[in-house]
Amino acid sequence: MAAFPRHLLLAPSIAVAGDARAAAGEEPDLPRPLGIGEGAALLAERALASKGAWVRLAELCDSVGHRLAGSVAMERAVAWAAATLRADGLDVALEPVAVPSWWRGEERVELVAPYPRRLRVHTLGGSVGTGPEGITGEVLVVGSFEELAARAGEAAGRIVLYDAPWESYGQAVQFRAAGASRAAAVGALAALVRSPTPTSLATPHTGGLSYEAGAARIPGVALTTEDSAWLRRLAARGQAPVVHLVLGAEDRGTVTSHNVVATVRGRERPEESVILACHLDSWDVGQGAQDDGAGCAAAMEAGHLLAALRVPPRRSVRVVLFTNEEYGLSGGLAYAQAHAGEIALISAAIEADTGAGEPLGFGLDLRDPATGEAAGEAARAALAVLRPHAGLLGPIGATALDVGGSGSDISPLAARGVPTLGLRQDTAGYWPVHHTEADTLDKVDPALLARNAAALAVMGWLLAELPAPLPRVSPPGP
Amino acid sequence: MAAFPRHLLLAPSIAVAGDARAAAGEEPDLPRPLGIGEGAALLAERALASKGAWVRLAELCDSVGHRLAGSVAMERAVAWAAATLRADGLDVALEPVAVPSWWRGEERVELVAPYPRRLRVHTLGGSVGTGPEGITGEVLVVGSFEELAARAGEAAGRIVLYDAPWESYGQAVQFRAAGASRAAAVGALAALVRSPTPTSLATPHTGGLSYEAGAARIPGVALTTEDSAWLRRLAARGQAPVVHLVLGAEDRGTVTSHNVVATVRGRERPEESVILACHLDSWDVGQGAQDDGAGCAAAMEAGHLLAALRVPPRRSVRVVLFTNEEYGLSGGLAYAQAHAGEIALISAAIEADTGAGEPLGFGLDLRDPATGEAAGEAARAALAVLRPHAGLLGPIGATALDVGGSGSDISPLAARGVPTLGLRQDTAGYWPVHHTEADTLDKVDPALLARNAAALAVMGWLLAELPAPLPRVSPPGP
Repeated sequence: MAAFPRHLLLAPSIAVAGDARAAAGEEPDLPRPLGIGEGAALLAERALASKGAWVRLAELCDSVGHRLAGSVAMERAVAWAAATLRADGLDVALEPVAVPSWWRGEERVELVAPYPRRLRVHTLGGSVGTGPEGITGEVLVVGSFEELAARAGEAAGRIVLYDAPWESYGQAVQFRAAGASRAAAVGALAALVRSPTPTSLATPHTGGLSYEAGAARIPGVALTTEDSAWLRRLAARGQAPVVHLVLGAEDRGTVTSHNVVATVRGRERPEESVILACHLDSWDVGQGAQDDGAGCAAAMEAGHLLAALRVPPRRSVRVVLFTNEEYGLSGGLAYAQAHAGEIALISAAIEADTGAGEPLGFGLDLRDPATGEAAGEAARAALAVLRPHAGLLGPIGATALDVGGSGSDISPLAARGVPTLGLRQDTAGYWPVHHTEADTLDKVDPALLARNAAALAVMGWLLAELPAPLPRVSPPGP
Repeated sequence: MAAFPRHLLLAPSIAVAGDARAAAGEEPDLPRPLGIGEGAALLAERALASKGAWVRLAELCDSVGHRLAGSVAMERAVAWAAATLRADGLDVALEPVAVPSWWRGEERVELVAPYPRRLRVHTLGGSVGTGPEGITGEVLVVGSFEELAARAGEAAGRIVLYDAPWESYGQAVQFRAAGASRAAAVGALAALVRSPTPTSLATPHTGGLSYEAGAARIPGVALTTEDSAWLRRLAARGQAPVVHLVLGAEDRGTVTSHNVVATVRGRERPEESVILACHLDSWDVGQGAQDDGAGCAAAMEAGHLLAALRVPPRRSVRVVLFTNEEYGLSGGLAYAQAHAGEIALISAAIEADTGAGEPLGFGLDLRDPATGEAAGEAARAALAVLRPHAGLLGPIGATALDVGGSGSDISPLAARGVPTLGLRQDTAGYWPVHHTEADTLDKVDPALLARNAAALAVMGWLLAELPAPLPRVSPPGP
């Protein structure tokens, strides 16, 4: 792509990331290792003063745009990220990953009764298509799987709409993920789901569905909350809605994508690593600015600032931009598989994948590799190691430390016993744009993005510099 | 259309509008006129307890839907409104109005360079189309008419994008209204405008454009704020955006629509009237719930409650649902023309046309019919008559009374000297959905809608019951 004139995006008074070494806090003249507090303060100061994460996010959003795994755009993003990280002084490797290639194609859903009206929709990722002649059916509106079970006798030959009001993403997303197979099991022709969001301006939300093994595969489509509520009202007053779906979606097989792995080599124990994770792929709508361009921009800038230190941290830091989080977790699973022999050397992994809101702190997910279950005692021991250092995150305002989920890309590492952390963020602005055409650069605040980069840089530094790695549950012996 | 089973929308404990007389406050057994305060209190109590406005709005939105003037849907809305108002006890007349018939057709805009991407757009109402082969051009991004003038030499053969950040609707809408003709004057092929809204979730806003007489007519299209900002960023860094437009819009001539005029006959001076105004037409997107379904539902319910009084107010009250406010003000102009001989008998007109947010009070627009200019002294005199009664609106929370704009449909009456009032509302939720697919029933709060109906009922009652009409500037003698 064309060279990106960075000065156009930068306020002249703010240090460019590339100039961070010269512009921000002082480093000692002699190359001695920094103390933990000294390094954290330096990194926080530089990250908060830098527009580096913002520049990277703007490049990714505006010059690559959305980037579904398996697409040409995704491999352009991979090439861009590798070149950028190399220019920032990191050692970059591309690790091949087999990913599905799914094509959205046409997505046309029309209400045909009680009167004609085009609906705004997104086919769910991974859905089968309808063929060019489409599918027509009366809509059966349910609010839960329990209601579907109770009305199973009405479902055959109809199109099931799951219209449940938003409570949380976890509550809402179950219908997107499992709704098609559950509807197919009772004879439905297709499944419609209310977009999982607390607010909408006629904005459909895509996202992956999962077909149950062996079950019939029927199409799955997200409606806007507005249309979903309207169809529910029509059905409630007996004006049976009938819809016609024409979906061009198709599975185009498996192609090769890449995880981007960029290393800042540790000074004492380079074989040990701390991972700063995000996913570079997005859905094929909007710009993937918050999901998860922002996490990648923050992780890249954190890696850049760590690479710019005169003396690197004790352990290596790896910025890993995963491929295909969105539709099957291919990158995260492949990384854990490819690095299965070095799990003990991965000291920790940190993921940023809930947007670009205010950073609040970190959640810790630590599991017993024998069972995959959460290991409460070890987690408490790990938090006890971290808590005395929480003040290092004070200038960033991200001091909360608790047990909780970390991130999907690093969940296969968590299952193998690696201590994993998730950057906690204010998500009020995240769910309304998540997986939509509205996930665009203009929704991201540059100052908040810099704070997120600062939080990753400081936590990455801390975990890479601590004298001993975080405690974990050791795997069962041979 | 099918009969509308009202019980499905009503909480059983809340009085239905049709039962208001029996269910709410007491009326004297003997049919004596109510005092001003007595009547206002009764109407407020009944309106606040009624779901009548909500039921009407749900019928209009869900069973008719959007209703562009000139469309079949608009005449279905006219028939529905007339039947509903007749059933509510008002005398209904349909007054024919010649309206333009504009057809949106296909609206397809694609970025073709620096890389292909479909943009979400709405053709502006009244725009010419492109023909099936479309128009392709490089985008010239400007932030103001002044910038367009300064860069006029760059505009020939290009497509002008007006990308000005939101300050107010009045500021933003000038580019939608006049942008196409201004761009045509400097040789542009088409005009794109940033949707006028403070917030967006990839939501384009349509609305009318006005071609200058005698000027070349080029297409006008609204982009989302997201895409508009993106094209501006691309242009700023020299990655010249090129777009391709295919617009099926066409003018289909003039057809007959109708103003719906529903009268509660006054007991003492039936020839004098107070108008409760709204516009029944909407743009051809969404459901026209807030613009202006809500105003019509509130006015209809206010008329219903006034008709249900045992003794009507002194003057007649006319609920007037205007046609074609959106694209040329045909209904408002036709009403003023048709009733030009009785202007002196129209004591006042009140319009509700800014959504369904919290009602705050009323603005008064009073003009000198000789000049059309605001008549400050007469306005202050009129406010001095109203202010002692502002407490009647206290239970509704709509006590503010000030000089200001009233409503577009009644502006031709205002220009002829009729005292006109505009219901003031909290518009925070209005501009984001205005003229979009997101202007749907789910955005309206039934309790707030009832408060708006109450405000119209009480102000309508007050103006119809005052011993003397509001002061005005008399027209020049013969």
